[in-house]
Amino acid sequence: MSEPQFKKIVIFGVGLIGGSFALALRKAHAVGEVVGFGRSEATLQQAQQLGIINRIGQDVAAEVSNADLVLLATPVGQMAELMVRIAPHLGVHTLVTDGGSTKSDVVAAARANLGSKVVQFIPAHPIAGAEKSGAGAAQADLYQGRKVVLTPLPENSQEAVARVRKAWELCGAAVSELTAEQHDAVFAAVSHLPHLLSFALVHDLAQRDNRDLLLSFAASGFRDFTRIAASSPEMWRDICLANREALLRELQIYIAELKQMSAALEAGDAVRLEQTFRAARELRAGWTEQ
Amino acid sequence: MSEPQFKKIVIFGVGLIGGSFALALRKAHAVGEVVGFGRSEATLQQAQQLGIINRIGQDVAAEVSNADLVLLATPVGQMAELMVRIAPHLGVHTLVTDGGSTKSDVVAAARANLGSKVVQFIPAHPIAGAEKSGAGAAQADLYQGRKVVLTPLPENSQEAVARVRKAWELCGAAVSELTAEQHDAVFAAVSHLPHLLSFALVHDLAQRDNRDLLLSFAASGFRDFTRIAASSPEMWRDICLANREALLRELQIYIAELKQMSAALEAGDAVRLEQTFRAARELRAGWTEQ
Repeated sequence: MSEPQFKKIVIFGVGLIGGSFALALRKAHAVGEVVGFGRSEATLQQAQQLGIINRIGQDVAAEVSNADLVLLATPVGQMAELMVRIAPHLGVHTLVTDGGSTKSDVVAAARANLGSKVVQFIPAHPIAGAEKSGAGAAQADLYQGRKVVLTPLPENSQEAVARVRKAWELCGAAVSELTAEQHDAVFAAVSHLPHLLSFALVHDLAQRDNRDLLLSFAASGFRDFTRIAASSPEMWRDICLANREALLRELQIYIAELKQMSAALEAGDAVRLEQTFRAARELRAGWTEQ
Repeated sequence: MSEPQFKKIVIFGVGLIGGSFALALRKAHAVGEVVGFGRSEATLQQAQQLGIINRIGQDVAAEVSNADLVLLATPVGQMAELMVRIAPHLGVHTLVTDGGSTKSDVVAAARANLGSKVVQFIPAHPIAGAEKSGAGAAQADLYQGRKVVLTPLPENSQEAVARVRKAWELCGAAVSELTAEQHDAVFAAVSHLPHLLSFALVHDLAQRDNRDLLLSFAASGFRDFTRIAASSPEMWRDICLANREALLRELQIYIAELKQMSAALEAGDAVRLEQTFRAARELRAGWTEQ
């Protein structure tokens, strides 16, 4: 049997993102050994029982010194501390990637905490559903056909980027590349803003005395529009703050758009309203999720 | 065999709403004869072939003079003209209802155009999906388990309201009652505003040079949030204008909510953001479409 592409992978955070990464690479026979670290001993044991990891790591320094690849799959807020811990011990050939859904902040943390080892860090954002979480939700085909965006640093070697790309491709993902700034601008527009708007609508209704009456007449349009308002408050607090500047820009543009629609409505401008709705409909009806 | 509850029903507009009403009452053996009127001869012939109507009406005056029930199932914008045509000829025992999704404007039209016959008009809003349209989309079970809101007028007799309620219940609907003003305020909040917001987001993106790049990274959150932005531009132009005042009030409240979120984001107020998202999540996660 041929050697696996990655002899040893170390994963920090063996939940949905990290666990699915491990399961996918194991299914592809692309990894020899997976070592897991995490805050919860119970989760680590569950991950081992589920065949996600081979071993629970005990010594960070020793484990990252001879790993081919390290995946940071914790919440973004915990990554800076992890970077401080692994930086002095990373092997010369050890590459690091992550699963955070914002990138400028992760890159800033890497520059601040990985020192010269930042050259070995290739940031990634796997765009995979977050409705479920935990090791129990991990699945080998989570990334199958999904997009993963790499935001390589100017310091990264082409070889290092290619190798991290290969890992995500072995998981079944379609990998593309953007700069961290492009990434955060794109996701502020198509993901972070819609989440904020959906939360805002439901929060608005939640403040009202007649909310039960209102909700009793809500139908399928409301259901779809507000589905993302049932997302994790902590996760979205962190994403919004991490991508604050791009999100604030999007929010200002959107408020200006609403003021224009309000003015059209106030003026009874049927033509303007219809043109606006028609442009939206054309774009949306022509779009299919890829 | 017992007499049907309604010997003769006249329907103006034999599309999804009117056609399904006819099919449902026929399936319930609750109607003797259904006569259809409409702008398109082809649609009327299709409705006859599909067994939705027994006859295509030729003489409005004659048909409405001895009908038990008249349903106005055209776009709301055409109802005033229809009311003018039917008012002089409505039989003493003929009741009129409608299928419009806004109510204050329909009531205003009825008061302006039905004269003393307004007493025979019991407005209704069947809350049934509008993704499809036309006679071909009509189905006997469209209203099964769906909500229909009646907005009776102070002039209506209890008997008249009960009889129109019965017709919608025979279609399988759960019927409730609100005033026209309550109705329009409720639907501005839970339906019309979300549609406007969804159209606004997609319109905003449609204006941008990099819209293809943006859309290529849009995922399931965007998909759900913007599904209603593929709705009919003409229909939503009319609904927004018909319910302009209530919708403008909702829009101002929502813009104020967004400004508060913008301020919280600008201040990096993690507690405020999380509280807002959590209140939204709790309400949304506890809600199920009825």
